[in-house]
Amino acid sequence: MAIAKIRLFVEHPLGEGQTIPLTRDQAHYLFGVMRLNPGDPVLLFNGQDGEWRATVAEANKRGGLLKADEQTSPQRNPPDLWLLFAPIKKARTDFIVEKAAEMGAARILPVQTDFTNAERIRQDRLQAHAVEAAEQCGGTFVPEVTGLHKLSDLLADWPADRHLMFCDEALAGGSSALPTDLSGRPWAILIGPEGGFSEPERTRLANHPSAHPIALGPRILRADTAAVAALTVWQQALGDWTC
Amino acid sequence: MAIAKIRLFVEHPLGEGQTIPLTRDQAHYLFGVMRLNPGDPVLLFNGQDGEWRATVAEANKRGGLLKADEQTSPQRNPPDLWLLFAPIKKARTDFIVEKAAEMGAARILPVQTDFTNAERIRQDRLQAHAVEAAEQCGGTFVPEVTGLHKLSDLLADWPADRHLMFCDEALAGGSSALPTDLSGRPWAILIGPEGGFSEPERTRLANHPSAHPIALGPRILRADTAAVAALTVWQQALGDWTC
Repeated sequence: MAIAKIRLFVEHPLGEGQTIPLTRDQAHYLFGVMRLNPGDPVLLFNGQDGEWRATVAEANKRGGLLKADEQTSPQRNPPDLWLLFAPIKKARTDFIVEKAAEMGAARILPVQTDFTNAERIRQDRLQAHAVEAAEQCGGTFVPEVTGLHKLSDLLADWPADRHLMFCDEALAGGSSALPTDLSGRPWAILIGPEGGFSEPERTRLANHPSAHPIALGPRILRADTAAVAALTVWQQALGDWTC
Repeated sequence: MAIAKIRLFVEHPLGEGQTIPLTRDQAHYLFGVMRLNPGDPVLLFNGQDGEWRATVAEANKRGGLLKADEQTSPQRNPPDLWLLFAPIKKARTDFIVEKAAEMGAARILPVQTDFTNAERIRQDRLQAHAVEAAEQCGGTFVPEVTGLHKLSDLLADWPADRHLMFCDEALAGGSSALPTDLSGRPWAILIGPEGGFSEPERTRLANHPSAHPIALGPRILRADTAAVAALTVWQQALGDWTC
């Protein structure tokens, strides 16, 4: 049996014998770019039903049909972790979304802070990056990328049971430890904007009942580096990494 | 006194009253791009003498002179940590070098593995990325980027006292713990190439007396994500992060 090298996210239920119609873009990718033919294998996931091995049943330029054969991996969801970050330059924002998907965030929330320049984001584009990252990293889950929220609105309406790891560059050199007795609980990580938080934001975060301020080492990190470092610290202390 | 917003790496001794001649590129950046005038402040570091506040003494299109006034930060060197990685696509290789400088690696060694495509690297370009990252992150140290080494040569001639953290994606889901009693010792981190290590490489690494294999969580990470995650794990367990 041929080994499937292509992993594809589909918005369709997956189960034994299930047929999956392809969108025009998917057909173009599989048949136009990757040159698959009827009978060739593909790996599929939809974020809910695990990973399935499927074969090409019908192929044409504008569409096609796949047929799911067998489950190759069970569904694996990340911990209930949100990543909040202030959008920065385009390429680095794309990277943060990609990294958050790889590192196992469940939900990605772009936030507008006092020092954020971005007035708007391309939510569909960022969601597509999350899908591509999940396809690449072998995951079966795709984190949702939300629209842009104001940080002040989010904090005012913060869910009472969700802890907030707040990466404060003003603490540089301080402790990066998290309270390990708070594992298995809903959490969020907040990465500051380039240029840091404003004084009112810093005060509000320091006094927020759910906030746990930590430092990410003695050096100042760029926002995209900080996102991966913070996700590593959290996953190791409280998430699905094994220490 | 005006606040210096520009940080510049210079290859020149720094001390009180020291004058620093500028290269043509530096003069272009300071006077042409950033529009500095005589008397304006700049922060300087050279990787050895800490950070100094300097003022523009002479400015012209093709050169100029700075004068160092006072030390604003002592020299801070990172732990004795090497990062070994297999070069990948250009943008991601640039990112790895930038991230390694920010995260506090002392030396960056591009390595050629059995599954590495790159035959050559632009060492000068990568070194410039390390300098820029140090300028941006407020560091006083610039890691050296070496030329491309064959992994097999490096392992054959490995320094007896240097421990090697080997991030093995075949261990996905296994332990990410490091032996904390080995802090303060020379270390290196090895990030695998996209496509992983070959079987002979894996066997050689598994049997290498200095190697400590660890996993970076249950998901497969891209090489640039793995570099930041591995540096975080190491700095937290053995380096200059405070837990």
